[in-house]
Amino acid sequence: MDLTERTIEKKQIMDGKVIKVEKHIVTLPNGRETVREVVKHPGAVAILAVKDKKILFVEQFRKAMEKCLIEIPAGKVESGEERINTAKRELEEETGYTTQQLSLLNEFYVSPGFCDEYISLYYTDTLIASSMLSPDEDEFVNHHWLTLDEALQWIDEGRIEDAKTIIAILNYQLKMRK
Amino acid sequence: MDLTERTIEKKQIMDGKVIKVEKHIVTLPNGRETVREVVKHPGAVAILAVKDKKILFVEQFRKAMEKCLIEIPAGKVESGEERINTAKRELEEETGYTTQQLSLLNEFYVSPGFCDEYISLYYTDTLIASSMLSPDEDEFVNHHWLTLDEALQWIDEGRIEDAKTIIAILNYQLKMRK
Repeated sequence: MDLTERTIEKKQIMDGKVIKVEKHIVTLPNGRETVREVVKHPGAVAILAVKDKKILFVEQFRKAMEKCLIEIPAGKVESGEERINTAKRELEEETGYTTQQLSLLNEFYVSPGFCDEYISLYYTDTLIASSMLSPDEDEFVNHHWLTLDEALQWIDEGRIEDAKTIIAILNYQLKMRK
Repeated sequence: MDLTERTIEKKQIMDGKVIKVEKHIVTLPNGRETVREVVKHPGAVAILAVKDKKILFVEQFRKAMEKCLIEIPAGKVESGEERINTAKRELEEETGYTTQQLSLLNEFYVSPGFCDEYISLYYTDTLIASSMLSPDEDEFVNHHWLTLDEALQWIDEGRIEDAKTIIAILNYQLKMRK
């Protein structure tokens, strides 16, 4: 069955700092019409960074949930920026570490029901301490280093509850078991 | 460091069919002000459903990406609905199978940078064929049954590129290796 939804009309509702919101009127495969709400996002990277068998996490306040979450380092792709360079930049800005070696683990949409945000997840175990720790001027973070077992326990306990971070930890668990 | 961002002002930009969009003006830990764009989402469930060692996938058109994605069965929580009942309902509507046994694998935010969408991921290997296959009237899907090895290959090939689906497959891989 051809599942394509054809656009009849598209309207921008919001042109924000990070996201754009659109309403699409579409024709469904059965010929009927419906409305799709679409959030356009610049995309993001995340980094599974390991040193001495410990994984590096950042804790930051997330306004949408009104609480702090523990995540791996991550950040939005800037216009025209190659994703691997976003990963190096965000790692340094959020953690004070640089690396020259990043390997791509996975790429995925996080909320395809309404949003095109696409995350590239990289791995590095060659961290170099940098003098520079300069989060964005509106970004404040705490750092945590956890062993794999601790990270798995934090998932079980609900202390880690971020999708990209869970994908990174499960990937690392599989890598360690090989 | 206390990372809390305090709300000075909150404004609703859009009250949509699925999402609500808000702009929050906040005070940062350093006293400065910034704007946070927040998308409110009703939350969702997803189901890792296994029968005869094959995993059940649904393929559907996703307007935000303008293409079809292959995902595990999933759907939004309706107002007042218990999440385990959402899981049973969505499984039946999207796949034509029912189950009385669902165990919770993980719960996670998918895009905490701007959105409060929270997904509960369930597992079942006791599927019962139902007469009812009734997707929402604006939902059209194809089905796929894949072995674990096929699913892992589809991730590697970029044919599966949905975060909740990757979490489900990696969980299943770890379960099978025990």
